[in-house]
Amino acid sequence: MMGGITRRQLLTGIGALALGTMMMNFKDLVTPVEAKEKGKKWPYEKLDPAEVAEIAYNAWFEVYCAQATATGLMTPLMKKIGSPWKDYPIHSLKFGMGGMLGWGLTCGSPVAASIVMGLVIPDENTLNLMIHDLLQWYAETALPVYKPKNPRANKEGIITTVSHSPLCHISVGKWMKAANKSFKSIERRDRCARVAASVAYKTAEMLNAYFEGTYKPRDPWNAQSIFGIPAQQNCGECHGTNIPEVPKS
Amino acid sequence: MMGGITRRQLLTGIGALALGTMMMNFKDLVTPVEAKEKGKKWPYEKLDPAEVAEIAYNAWFEVYCAQATATGLMTPLMKKIGSPWKDYPIHSLKFGMGGMLGWGLTCGSPVAASIVMGLVIPDENTLNLMIHDLLQWYAETALPVYKPKNPRANKEGIITTVSHSPLCHISVGKWMKAANKSFKSIERRDRCARVAASVAYKTAEMLNAYFEGTYKPRDPWNAQSIFGIPAQQNCGECHGTNIPEVPKS
Repeated sequence: MMGGITRRQLLTGIGALALGTMMMNFKDLVTPVEAKEKGKKWPYEKLDPAEVAEIAYNAWFEVYCAQATATGLMTPLMKKIGSPWKDYPIHSLKFGMGGMLGWGLTCGSPVAASIVMGLVIPDENTLNLMIHDLLQWYAETALPVYKPKNPRANKEGIITTVSHSPLCHISVGKWMKAANKSFKSIERRDRCARVAASVAYKTAEMLNAYFEGTYKPRDPWNAQSIFGIPAQQNCGECHGTNIPEVPKS
Repeated sequence: MMGGITRRQLLTGIGALALGTMMMNFKDLVTPVEAKEKGKKWPYEKLDPAEVAEIAYNAWFEVYCAQATATGLMTPLMKKIGSPWKDYPIHSLKFGMGGMLGWGLTCGSPVAASIVMGLVIPDENTLNLMIHDLLQWYAETALPVYKPKNPRANKEGIITTVSHSPLCHISVGKWMKAANKSFKSIERRDRCARVAASVAYKTAEMLNAYFEGTYKPRDPWNAQSIFGIPAQQNCGECHGTNIPEVPKS
């Protein structure tokens, strides 16, 4: 047993996901010091999630997941609001693709979406809850969700997979295995473009809800409180049955 | 054998690191389409790496790894240059801490450093090589390197560890095991502040070298070419001896 989770639950990756309902001492990790924020938050206007997703889907084939997600969310805001959105150095996010230029680390889409949320959500605690929610949604949702108007592949339908992780390597690897498609295939490229679009869509929905006053954070899962170390919710997937003890000193 | 690497080399995590000398078809992954960059690159002036690192170290205790690294690099540029640096929404990077709010994903320091590099390096191919170099340096270096002027802990010296990964969970977990210190301990906090400072120092050195015309990229390791999927260089660490085959279709 670790923090109320059985080893078996960890191995399946299901028990830990269910921990969203176990409210931990979340503030210990994310708001031990109030942010000293410079400048006001950026202006926001309600987004059309489908428009955002469609832009992200098509942008992916030019700039890949991180910048495509930011492009989907920011392009309507540039048009509606202009400055400061039109001045954002969006190309500086391109490196997020493939989990940082193919290293398979964090999927670039939630990274870029989190930056956009950080530009507009004025309350840091709520911002952190929203980013947690997005990561948890990414990990437990059968992706991709969004169906583009003119898909470039998988036109008869697409296999979806639950990653149990926001890591590129795990997310795309499970899909490639289920679909039996190579990384270079157009089907895989279409899948990742749809994931970027799905994340952008979800983020637009969350932002709209926040500014409409209807956003309700889920209770966040907090690895630090449960395991004593920053972690995902899929311990057994890498550690197998040999999950290390964490130093307590 | 996978792409010339033996399974044993993968398991140790050493063989793959040595692959830096094997130049792969890198452009396939990172520059299939030229970036359509909006606006000019941001102005740069030579940084003092020790000043940058010292700022990052102290900022960590307020804003943690990602924002601290950006603060170290950007504060001198704000002072020397002013706009656009002083207008950068640096608080939007804070979520990178703990590998995205404690999820243990990519360490926030190289994420923030990559964004800063992306703001100033005009050539996308060189930018990508530099980000690769930073990730590889992070993975293979005994960290932390930087010793702050007034360390808040580990004053008699600090244990260093090689992570073989830019992931927060692996990086901090290996250090915690070696040092036998908990995540909440001041020693661990000092360690992560020193890592942020070390990454900021290294990035300042790399940027200075680039603008002095003396930067020589290392040959990048390219997971896509070797394994057919975005990946780190430590396959065996998660997969053990059961490394999956990647679909080829």
